[in-house]
This record gives sequence, structure tokens and C-alpha cells, in this order.
Amino acid sequence: MKIGILGGGQLGRMLIQNGLKYDDQWFTLDPAEDAPCSKISDFTHGSFDDYETVFNFGKGKDVVSIEIEHVNVDALFELQECGIKVIPNPEIIKTIQQKILQKEFYKKHGIPSPEFQIIENKSEVSFPLPFVQKMNTGGYDGKGVQVIRDEKDLEKLWNVPSVLENLVDIDKELSVIVAKNENGETKTFPVTEMVADPKLNLLDFNICPAEISEDVQRQIEEISQQFIDAAASAGLFAIELFLDKNGKVWLNETAPRLHNSGHQTQEGNANSQFEQMYRVLKNLPLGDTENFGFSGMLNLVGEENHHGKAKYDGLEEVLKLPKTYVHLYGKTETKPGRKMGHINVLADSREELLEKLIEIKSMIKVVSQ
Amino acid sequence: MKIGILGGGQLGRMLIQNGLKYDDQWFTLDPAEDAPCSKISDFTHGSFDDYETVFNFGKGKDVVSIEIEHVNVDALFELQECGIKVIPNPEIIKTIQQKILQKEFYKKHGIPSPEFQIIENKSEVSFPLPFVQKMNTGGYDGKGVQVIRDEKDLEKLWNVPSVLENLVDIDKELSVIVAKNENGETKTFPVTEMVADPKLNLLDFNICPAEISEDVQRQIEEISQQFIDAAASAGLFAIELFLDKNGKVWLNETAPRLHNSGHQTQEGNANSQFEQMYRVLKNLPLGDTENFGFSGMLNLVGEENHHGKAKYDGLEEVLKLPKTYVHLYGKTETKPGRKMGHINVLADSREELLEKLIEIKSMIKVVSQ
Repeated sequence: MKIGILGGGQLGRMLIQNGLKYDDQWFTLDPAEDAPCSKISDFTHGSFDDYETVFNFGKGKDVVSIEIEHVNVDALFELQECGIKVIPNPEIIKTIQQKILQKEFYKKHGIPSPEFQIIENKSEVSFPLPFVQKMNTGGYDGKGVQVIRDEKDLEKLWNVPSVLENLVDIDKELSVIVAKNENGETKTFPVTEMVADPKLNLLDFNICPAEISEDVQRQIEEISQQFIDAAASAGLFAIELFLDKNGKVWLNETAPRLHNSGHQTQEGNANSQFEQMYRVLKNLPLGDTENFGFSGMLNLVGEENHHGKAKYDGLEEVLKLPKTYVHLYGKTETKPGRKMGHINVLADSREELLEKLIEIKSMIKVVSQ
Repeated sequence: MKIGILGGGQLGRMLIQNGLKYDDQWFTLDPAEDAPCSKISDFTHGSFDDYETVFNFGKGKDVVSIEIEHVNVDALFELQECGIKVIPNPEIIKTIQQKILQKEFYKKHGIPSPEFQIIENKSEVSFPLPFVQKMNTGGYDGKGVQVIRDEKDLEKLWNVPSVLENLVDIDKELSVIVAKNENGETKTFPVTEMVADPKLNLLDFNICPAEISEDVQRQIEEISQQFIDAAASAGLFAIELFLDKNGKVWLNETAPRLHNSGHQTQEGNANSQFEQMYRVLKNLPLGDTENFGFSGMLNLVGEENHHGKAKYDGLEEVLKLPKTYVHLYGKTETKPGRKMGHINVLADSREELLEKLIEIKSMIKVVSQ
């Protein structure tokens, strides 16, 4: 089957890496000539944000999908009109692309997500402090999101269409990955707990399964089901959640694609998110998502003040550790905060897992040569 | 690092698939234009048996290795002279390439392998019946090997340089995969039991760990150690063994490369043979080889009377089974007996494993479209 992916980054690379277990032709489109997928797929150098480029890329494929949501959806709608299978549905990509549409979508479908105000510019702000401002478009990897804590912070407000959102008093950040194939079969991975790096606003550790009560688990299952029903699309979705200090779960955002919060499924679960996405693309029976004990992940991000050809200090020491799996993304250049790889770890208990993750984090650094 | 592999078949493909977890440039050389590695590596179309082709392919690489042993070793010696790292040592590849040298090597190093006679042509035969004739060169996947049972069979003798070998009264066929890096670190995978298809003379099932006594385990460890010491080379080696009905272990043959008998390590062990081979190539600390419960593999080979574009009847049903992992090799054309893929299975007991393997074998067939 001819599978075309918009975006040629690490998510596409790991999707193709897993997909090499089967017989397919993989095509990717990315604006970076040395994108992680460029050497392992039939690669088109071009912008996934450009109508003509996306349309021409998609023509003749059996299925077109995404590994990043900032793509030209008009071209995807057009491809769908031409009878080409697009997963997920362009409609849900469009909704998720724009924070304003996304929030309205949750509200319309009764999915609990933090209270909000929509503004076109900063003169319209009338929302109780503190709050979070999320730009309508352009947010990614923690960019385009800021916390406005007090009157003084109001000066920082971006003067662009945005969502202003109630600042949840967060106990835990959680994520759940749900897949649905065209036959309507749905499978959910165990809930993952995320521990963020406040400085880089990037995920730092994932811990799976999350330490949550039965009630919280139940709330999450309900939200996942609500989302999947509302999305009305085959696809693999990452649902990012907040658990507040009163034990209530809120939907923060969703991603209509493979997600960093599912990386530990590569070795931690009976099938990974990448295998599941492959099965969704081909409308195959979905894979078992069972976890093997405890699994965790830490991101390898470029150190501050390091620009240039990447080097992984401490890599050899890490490779000596049992049940520790290094995944690098084949990116030639490092820069501060750039996601260059990740490390998955298996353990028999949550305590052992946390100890191992903290130890490994102190052992390895992404620097320039 | 620039890694060059002679051969672009399924073993190379799975090596590269695993290697995509790291940052390297992969190069392959194969005479088949549509070889399984052709689309996922920097591919050279040419013969790995030709001196010039191999030498030119190897120049400028950081390390050159093999995924098939029938390569031009003179070119490998020359590359080594030029300072290019060749793994394994061309000397051991040369020894293993020729069944006569291989047998003499075992004898010289006191490694128990069946009694034998070397012949240049069939007029020289003076070996007690029944025996096995193995052609000196050209044997592969069961080709170039035949059993001579009685006087009448003597007519079938191939008139080529051969090894005649005592026919072992086999209780079990076993295999063990051993890796050694340039630092001298050695790691061994758990012993695997192989169940062969008498018709195709190809592996059929692997079962790991093998059901063997402590004494047999000890004999195998001794043979592995003897072989690794004698080979005096970094590399990953598959040591194929016979356990006879008196409880004695004999070395049948070795392969200086990745091997079909190690495929179930992909999901069955903490690290796979492919990860281990990668670590050998880069002289990294070797991975933990621990197995997770019981694992097994069955080969997917082309059905009799089917030639042409491959189709996998029953694949969808197999994908519904838990702890079952399909690996296809990206070969476009099927033909009778061609290895097209394999399926790995995990189980909690040997009985459960065997049941699952037998069930799956009856569910799936490689046919032409």
C-alpha cells in the first residue's frame, strides 16, 4: 500500500521504522531537506502547509495521514473529494489546529475542559486572573502558550486571536492515547502521567501506568469516549488531561496523531502507538495495548548553549543499563530545547522506574561536537 | 557512522530497522534491485561476490559487515589492509564459507562436531553409511546438503569437493547466538530449539528457551566458548547444534552473522539479535539478552505452486491474536519455499507457545495474487 505522511520528523520516522515489519511503500513530505524520514522513505522536499504541494503529494496514494497537525487541510479535503483516504478526517484536524475551534468543540460536545474566553485581540480581555493565554494558531511544543498571573502580567498579552483559559490547580498531567479504525474498533492505551520541565515547557518524563484512583480512571474513560464519539473519525489521538487538586479531570488539549506521551509504548506495551497507528492506517484489527509492568520515558533535548552537530555525552554508560532503550531521531543538528531522542525504561515498580529515570537523566546530555 | 552491509536481504533490513533507533548512515550492496534493504538504505546494486564491487562499496565506510556469508573475502581482507573495520574478521568468514575449512577448524580447536571425511570428488568416498554430504561451497538454506542412507543412494552423490559427515541420531536441533564486541565483551542469548520442516529443509518453528538438561546447557556453553575463542573475532555468530539421543551435543555448523534462529528475540528478549549486532558493529556495551517468558517463531515461506506478487492469506486473523508479531520482509515476489516473513509469538508456557504456533501456522499462507 502507498502510505503518504505529511511531516517527516521523528514521529513519522518511528511510524515507518515500525512499518518496516510489513510490506508497504512509505512517502513523506517535509520542508527540511534532512528531515528524520528523508532517508528511509520516498521523500518530497516541500511545505506541508502549501495547498498545491500537499495536494500533489497526496495524489495517487492509498492513504494520506499526518505526523504534525499544522498542515494544509484544504488540500486534505480536496484529496478526500478525489476519493483518497485521509486519516484522520480533515475536519477533526482543522478543529484541533485552531485552539478556538478546539475549545468550542469540547463545549459543544459537553466534554469537561477548563472555562474559557475567546478573544480576537487583547482589548477584548474580560477573564478572571490568573489565566492561560493560548494563541489560536501556531502553538507547538509549549510555544504560543503563556500564563497571565496578575495585573502586571497583562502587559505580556499577545495581541492575537486566542483562548483565555482558567488556570487549573494541577495535581497531575495525564495523557491517554486512543485509536479507532475505520471498522469502528477502538482501543485505549493505559493512562500515562507526565512530569514536565518548567523551564522548557516540554515533556520531561512519562510514567505508565499513572498512579490514579478508580474514580479518576473512570472520568478519563468517559472523556476519551466522548472525544472519540465527537471526533467521528478513524485515527490515533492523544488526549492530554489535567487532574485538579479536587480530583476532577479536565481535557487540556488533544493531538490528532502520534504523541510524545506514548513513546514508552515501544518497549512497555504489547504493541506500541506506532504499530497501532499503522493498523489504523490500513484498517487492520487493532493491537493489544497491555503494559508489561511499569514503563517510563525521558526526552533527550538539546542542552542550552549548544548549537551544531549533535553528540550524546554519556550514551555508552546508558547502554550498559538493563531494560533501557535509547531512541535517537537522526537529527544532525542540535539546538537548545530541540527534541533529539528519548529513552524508554522498564521497571517492576513505580519507585524503581522513577529512580532509573532520574539516574539516566543525570547521565546523558545532548551537546554539540 | 557510515555502516556498510554486504547483502540487502531481510537480515539487513531488520538490522537497519532496529538501527533506526540511532543516528547512522546505512549502506547496502545486493544483486537484486528490489532487495528488502533497497528503499531504506543508501543502496548499491551489484554483486557482493565481486572483488571490485565489494572493495569499492567498502571504501570510505567506518565499518563493513555482512548479512550473508557468500561474499568476496579477498576484497574484505584488502579493505582491512586499508584500515577499514571489517566485522566479523574476513578470516572467520572465509573459514565458514567453505564447509571443508569449517570442519577442519572445529577439529583443530577440539570442538565436538560429527566425524567426517573430506573428498575432492566422489571417487574418494570411503565413509561408513549412512552419512550426510555437504558441498564445500554453495550450500544455503538447506541447499547443497543431502543424506546418503544406503548403497543405492550412493548414485546421488554430487561429484564436487564435499564434507561427508556422520549422520547424527538427532534428538533435538538447537541453536545459540553469541556476540562479542571489540572490547572482548561476550553475551549469549538463551538456547533455542528448532523444529524443521522435513520437506523444505528450512527452519519451521523456533522455541525459546529450549527444553534441555543442565548437562546439555553446560556442553553448549563450553562449545560456544570454544568457538568464540577460536574465531578470535568480534561479531555475532549463530552456533547450530545437534543434541543426539545419548545426550551429547555436537556442533553442526556456524553462521558468522544474524540468523533465522534468533528472530524471536525481537519481542522475546530484553534486546534482539539485531540490537546486539548493531552494538557489535559500533563496539558498544552489549545488550542484556534475558528472555521474557517463552517465545517462538514460525517462518512464512511461499506456498508450493505459487509464483508472483505475494499475498498473505489469513494475515488479518493473525493480527487479532494477542502477543503475536508479524514481520514481513518487503519482498515483492513469492516463490515456493522462499522466506517471505516470520511471526513471533510470546507465551507463558512451552505448551501454550506450541499450541499458538501450530494454530497460527494453519491460519496463514503466502500465496500469489
